[in-house]
Amino acid sequence: MTDMDRTRLYRNGVLEAEGFPIDDVSDHVGDKSAVVWFDLCSPTAADLGKISEELGLHQLAVEDALHSHQRPKLDSYDTHLFITAYGAKMVDRSLDLIELSIFVTKNALVTVRENPGFDIDEVVRRWDANPEMVKYGVPYLLHGLLDYVVDGYFDVLQTMDDRVEALEDDLFADDPGDRVHIQRLTYEMRKTLVRFRRLAVPMREIVGSLLRRSVEMLDPALTPYYQDVYDHTLRAAEWTDSLRELVGNVREAHINQQGFRLNDIMKRITSWAAIIAVPTMITGYYGQNVPYPGFGQSIGFWTSTLAILVASSILYTIFKKKGWL
Amino acid sequence: MTDMDRTRLYRNGVLEAEGFPIDDVSDHVGDKSAVVWFDLCSPTAADLGKISEELGLHQLAVEDALHSHQRPKLDSYDTHLFITAYGAKMVDRSLDLIELSIFVTKNALVTVRENPGFDIDEVVRRWDANPEMVKYGVPYLLHGLLDYVVDGYFDVLQTMDDRVEALEDDLFADDPGDRVHIQRLTYEMRKTLVRFRRLAVPMREIVGSLLRRSVEMLDPALTPYYQDVYDHTLRAAEWTDSLRELVGNVREAHINQQGFRLNDIMKRITSWAAIIAVPTMITGYYGQNVPYPGFGQSIGFWTSTLAILVASSILYTIFKKKGWL
Amino acid sequence: MTDMDRTRLYRNGVLEAEGFPIDDVSDHVGDKSAVVWFDLCSPTAADLGKISEELGLHQLAVEDALHSHQRPKLDSYDTHLFITAYGAKMVDRSLDLIELSIFVTKNALVTVRENPGFDIDEVVRRWDANPEMVKYGVPYLLHGLLDYVVDGYFDVLQTMDDRVEALEDDLFADDPGDRVHIQRLTYEMRKTLVRFRRLAVPMREIVGSLLRRSVEMLDPALTPYYQDVYDHTLRAAEWTDSLRELVGNVREAHINQQGFRLNDIMKRITSWAAIIAVPTMITGYYGQNVPYPGFGQSIGFWTSTLAILVASSILYTIFKKKGWL
Amino acid sequence: MTDMDRTRLYRNGVLEAEGFPIDDVSDHVGDKSAVVWFDLCSPTAADLGKISEELGLHQLAVEDALHSHQRPKLDSYDTHLFITAYGAKMVDRSLDLIELSIFVTKNALVTVRENPGFDIDEVVRRWDANPEMVKYGVPYLLHGLLDYVVDGYFDVLQTMDDRVEALEDDLFADDPGDRVHIQRLTYEMRKTLVRFRRLAVPMREIVGSLLRRSVEMLDPALTPYYQDVYDHTLRAAEWTDSLRELVGNVREAHINQQGFRLNDIMKRITSWAAIIAVPTMITGYYGQNVPYPGFGQSIGFWTSTLAILVASSILYTIFKKKGWL
Amino acid sequence: MTDMDRTRLYRNGVLEAEGFPIDDVSDHVGDKSAVVWFDLCSPTAADLGKISEELGLHQLAVEDALHSHQRPKLDSYDTHLFITAYGAKMVDRSLDLIELSIFVTKNALVTVRENPGFDIDEVVRRWDANPEMVKYGVPYLLHGLLDYVVDGYFDVLQTMDDRVEALEDDLFADDPGDRVHIQRLTYEMRKTLVRFRRLAVPMREIVGSLLRRSVEMLDPALTPYYQDVYDHTLRAAEWTDSLRELVGNVREAHINQQGFRLNDIMKRITSWAAIIAVPTMITGYYGQNVPYPGFGQSIGFWTSTLAILVASSILYTIFKKKGWL
Repeated sequence: MTDMDRTRLYRNGVLEAEGFPIDDVSDHVGDKSAVVWFDLCSPTAADLGKISEELGLHQLAVEDALHSHQRPKLDSYDTHLFITAYGAKMVDRSLDLIELSIFVTKNALVTVRENPGFDIDEVVRRWDANPEMVKYGVPYLLHGLLDYVVDGYFDVLQTMDDRVEALEDDLFADDPGDRVHIQRLTYEMRKTLVRFRRLAVPMREIVGSLLRRSVEMLDPALTPYYQDVYDHTLRAAEWTDSLRELVGNVREAHINQQGFRLNDIMKRITSWAAIIAVPTMITGYYGQNVPYPGFGQSIGFWTSTLAILVASSILYTIFKKKGWL
Repeated sequence: MTDMDRTRLYRNGVLEAEGFPIDDVSDHVGDKSAVVWFDLCSPTAADLGKISEELGLHQLAVEDALHSHQRPKLDSYDTHLFITAYGAKMVDRSLDLIELSIFVTKNALVTVRENPGFDIDEVVRRWDANPEMVKYGVPYLLHGLLDYVVDGYFDVLQTMDDRVEALEDDLFADDPGDRVHIQRLTYEMRKTLVRFRRLAVPMREIVGSLLRRSVEMLDPALTPYYQDVYDHTLRAAEWTDSLRELVGNVREAHINQQGFRLNDIMKRITSWAAIIAVPTMITGYYGQNVPYPGFGQSIGFWTSTLAILVASSILYTIFKKKGWL
Repeated sequence: MTDMDRTRLYRNGVLEAEGFPIDDVSDHVGDKSAVVWFDLCSPTAADLGKISEELGLHQLAVEDALHSHQRPKLDSYDTHLFITAYGAKMVDRSLDLIELSIFVTKNALVTVRENPGFDIDEVVRRWDANPEMVKYGVPYLLHGLLDYVVDGYFDVLQTMDDRVEALEDDLFADDPGDRVHIQRLTYEMRKTLVRFRRLAVPMREIVGSLLRRSVEMLDPALTPYYQDVYDHTLRAAEWTDSLRELVGNVREAHINQQGFRLNDIMKRITSWAAIIAVPTMITGYYGQNVPYPGFGQSIGFWTSTLAILVASSILYTIFKKKGWL
Repeated sequence: MTDMDRTRLYRNGVLEAEGFPIDDVSDHVGDKSAVVWFDLCSPTAADLGKISEELGLHQLAVEDALHSHQRPKLDSYDTHLFITAYGAKMVDRSLDLIELSIFVTKNALVTVRENPGFDIDEVVRRWDANPEMVKYGVPYLLHGLLDYVVDGYFDVLQTMDDRVEALEDDLFADDPGDRVHIQRLTYEMRKTLVRFRRLAVPMREIVGSLLRRSVEMLDPALTPYYQDVYDHTLRAAEWTDSLRELVGNVREAHINQQGFRLNDIMKRITSWAAIIAVPTMITGYYGQNVPYPGFGQSIGFWTSTLAILVASSILYTIFKKKGWL
Repeated sequence: MTDMDRTRLYRNGVLEAEGFPIDDVSDHVGDKSAVVWFDLCSPTAADLGKISEELGLHQLAVEDALHSHQRPKLDSYDTHLFITAYGAKMVDRSLDLIELSIFVTKNALVTVRENPGFDIDEVVRRWDANPEMVKYGVPYLLHGLLDYVVDGYFDVLQTMDDRVEALEDDLFADDPGDRVHIQRLTYEMRKTLVRFRRLAVPMREIVGSLLRRSVEMLDPALTPYYQDVYDHTLRAAEWTDSLRELVGNVREAHINQQGFRLNDIMKRITSWAAIIAVPTMITGYYGQNVPYPGFGQSIGFWTSTLAILVASSILYTIFKKKGWL
């Protein structure tokens, strides 16, 4: 057991003890009037083994909790449920995902965090905010936990949404220097959304599945609360899909712009090349070693210079009018 | 309570009172023969708290009504339904969405508008247009409200549709200046459609769900009315998808055009570059300080000038024939 | 009532009267042994009002029939069905859609055409082609009508299909002039398909829904006929999707071609630019006012001319071999 | 009746007669212990009319068999099933589809081939390969027919698959000449796959539907055989979708290559243009009619020539290093 | 029988014999208390025929096991199940798929491997790791086999995932040489994913189907184990889809980069071309054979040289500022 582990004991809807050693697990588990919560942060097989034995957790679920990189899922065993979920937050520009394994028995909730990055204290704060709800026992505690996880998804999605807005500003910025990073950023955002989608969206099924079995498991008073979390997971999934489309929209507009700009550059090249090439041809003409009119005479100099100025001016005016310069 | 709030009391299908203070809520709520409507515009928690207490509204629904940015949804609670919907209208080129929270009990309808942008007066006008229907009570009032919301979606979609048509005219306009904004406009329209879709399309499920529970809740005479709104939501969803495709069509045609134009420009560059480069080469030849035939003689001048004119004419004719100029 | 309106009265499977005034509606409607058909072409509210009253049509359905731009749908009312459908035909290169509202009661069929563009005479011809079927009453008449509508879809799809084939011929034509309109045509076809899809494909649901309720409504002998129309709507929907893909295929191949051609043009530019630039450089060299070998001498002229010819020939051969010219 | 028509009579699982005239149809149809098979190749309405009358085939099904271009489907009539299917084979580079109409009654199988391209002899060979199965009657014969049709789809898919592999080899071939046809070939393959998909994939539903009604219709011993054909239709559908993706993959890689090559060509242009332009500028400098250092002197010739060689070498080295040449 | 074939006999959950000849099959098959396993590596029809006769395997299943290139599937026969699955591993850059046919009867498991590439020893090691589970008989053995197959999919997916990461590093590498292979690699990865998807994803249905029939077939204690494999197949399918998207993301970013780079190159061309063309024009001017100011005078040399230096510097500064050089 590490310093980061947390324990709590509720009896008849009231917090009775907190922070007692996990090793005391057997004192409380048998007691039907008690609700216990154990939180373990990156536990060893031995740590988890003790609890799993006392609570009768299934070997496969315990193994899943010890090995990371499971997919989000809800498994039903004879005596308990097992949930794998992912907490998510944005750290700078990258998505930080923390695996969370949850064992749910009638009287006990066991949470196993992959690392301390998941802020379990905030979950506790939420539980304590509605002390009158604690009487609903484990399902209430589980709701608080899932609610916090899904709220984290909204923070991630809001950050991504803001970033898409920022990208859009860059996209139509006057200074082309602002557009340099659009390609890399859209690439990263799409990648992040693919990863996020894979881990956050299955939460919809998990909460939906909990809701459907609510008839047997939950006090009816809790149904709206689970419905609420479920609505949030739905909204998160829809939002993720919208973001994908918005990022795609930015990406395509950016590519579109490049094509536009390429056309623009090509027009300028043509125009300036012509404006320079025509006088060059004229000077070439007057550079010939043949007795053209004005060869070696002042009149030649004036006609050549005039021809250069007139040709350049005409071309410049034409291209300016066409909007090519 | 603000000046913008509205109240109404119907008894036995007849409007009995209007504009009474919301604080009188307790006078009417207990009365089974009465149907009351309260409309609150951006209420405080206290405003809504009073009504929610009298009508027995669920805490979670009340919180949702006070916090904006919910997804459109229909939640069933023991004693009432709770609907979150969005009114939509186009203001200039941007989509204006106004959140609307609706509580539906047996004898009362409570509407909570996010801001005064939602034109509740028009809803009242619709209710008053069919006074004989008022006897169906709350479901009729709710129908009038939803009908108005969905009609607003058609206005938005019609505006978008017109805009797509306008874009198309620009797309094939002769003046390339008309095409400059196509890229930005298609970008904006796609973005608007993604946002609109996310908030308007779920209305289909909401109205469909109301329709399915019509057996227990609604007078059979109202079923066709709800069916009608449902048909409209279906059509709005299909229209939204069509618009997406049409905007995509414009976008792709525009990109396609750019490629076409780039090819066109490249051909012109080649052609004019050749027409200028060949005479330049000829003058270079006659500019050499070696005794080529005609060096320093009139015949040289004539052959050079002739060569330039002939070469230019031939090239010009070739390129003209190929359609490159 | 206009000249375009049609009426018919069948009794015991035999045509008894035709072309009687719609105002005589009350003479026939009450008669259980009679089957009546009224056809109205862009009727006024009053025209339709009379019939709707006699037949007990629902107010909402009547309003839908008077307002155009409904989505294709099948609404069930207590005493009748209401169908909105669209007749389709190609007029030149644009899709002509004519709204058709159909009221179906036990003994009467009312068809309301948006405008005379829908060829109701052809429907009548089909009815008359199988006089022995008339005994099945309204469902048979309705079948003939729907069958004609769906056959019209096949004509439209066949026209589109031929056009895609023609596009393909243009795509791989030797004369690039044939390719100029591909972009615009694919754009138009995609747009037409999106519109067509939105109005024709829902027919699948409508006929499917009629088929499912066939147990109660239809004589079993008619089931295969409705099944047949349903198969046609399925095939129309699949065909529409295939056409979309085929048009997309043409579009992408066309864009692909442009890229190919751009590469080709770039290669030619490089090649010709090089063939002209190298001799220009040589003449520049011999144009210097420095005593290079051959300066002012015949030998200079010959070496210069030889250098130009040799360099040009070598470059031309190289580029020809590379397939760049 | 044509020479191509085939007939067979089985009694008690043994082939009793073969090749008797179709006109003898009435001799065998009434006999419950007999199983008859009639095969007609592009029959006239009269040919089919006789059989249809004897077997009591539905008018609509008979019409479908006479008109080509039906969609693959399974229709149930009171006394028989009607199946429309398509045999497929690759003839050179184009897909050859042959419509096949099948009537299935209790004791008779009627196959109507659009043209002789469908190899009915091979079907007969398959029937004869397992003579002990003939006792299962019509369902066994039908299985043999469908099995042959679906096997034909695999041949088509295998040919397409080989062609995709060949395309891939061309794609990464060193000789760019091999790549010229990729665009056209991918275009054709996509088109073929769209057509094939539309006609072959619905077979999945048809066989699946036959399998589901197996309880009533089939001897349980035949179920695995129909399951087997169904597995094949599933695999054909999945394979078709994979091929679409693989062709799309080739197409996109090819476009990608073009972009790559364009960039490559542009770099070469820049490089060679620079290598030629710089010496040209130098010769221009020494061609001026002003007393620059070395004007008219040997030293001028040497400095000019040296400048040209040095500048060209430096540029060549730079570009070579950058990998632009 | 070859040296590679394996056999095992368990009785009452204990391994009794191993490596006995397959020809002894009849000794063990009749014995209800025994569980036998036969493993055949690329057997002949005769090898398999003997076993199939003893175990009463269906002819169709045996044929499927002998012919390769089946689709992954689960077929139910009266007396046994038949499963076709594919083991997968990455060998260098290509995907190696090994077909595996599995017959499952009450007391026997027969595995048929296409070639020795499938490591059956590892499956045996897994079985032996949990000797106490052997009492569950054939379903346990089957679970161990499927678990190993699906674990192999994860190895393949992990390898692909690492490769996508590596591609990404190349994508944003500073050295453009690293980007040369991106196109080919993304092409190959997409192709591999299409193939992998087609053979690995159907495993989801197979294991799901086994799980659903678990009620009758499996000891309830085994349900979580099958659930576990099913979760893995779900995750493998989702991972495959994510990888597709990630590869698509890389591909599109790469194309995007090319466009960016093309624009960049075009800007450089313009800039350098201008910097060289302007001095060339000036020298042309001073090369004219007309008495321009400074003709044949020192002042002419100085003004020409100054003009060249000033013009070049100005252009260089302008382009540098615009970021074009």
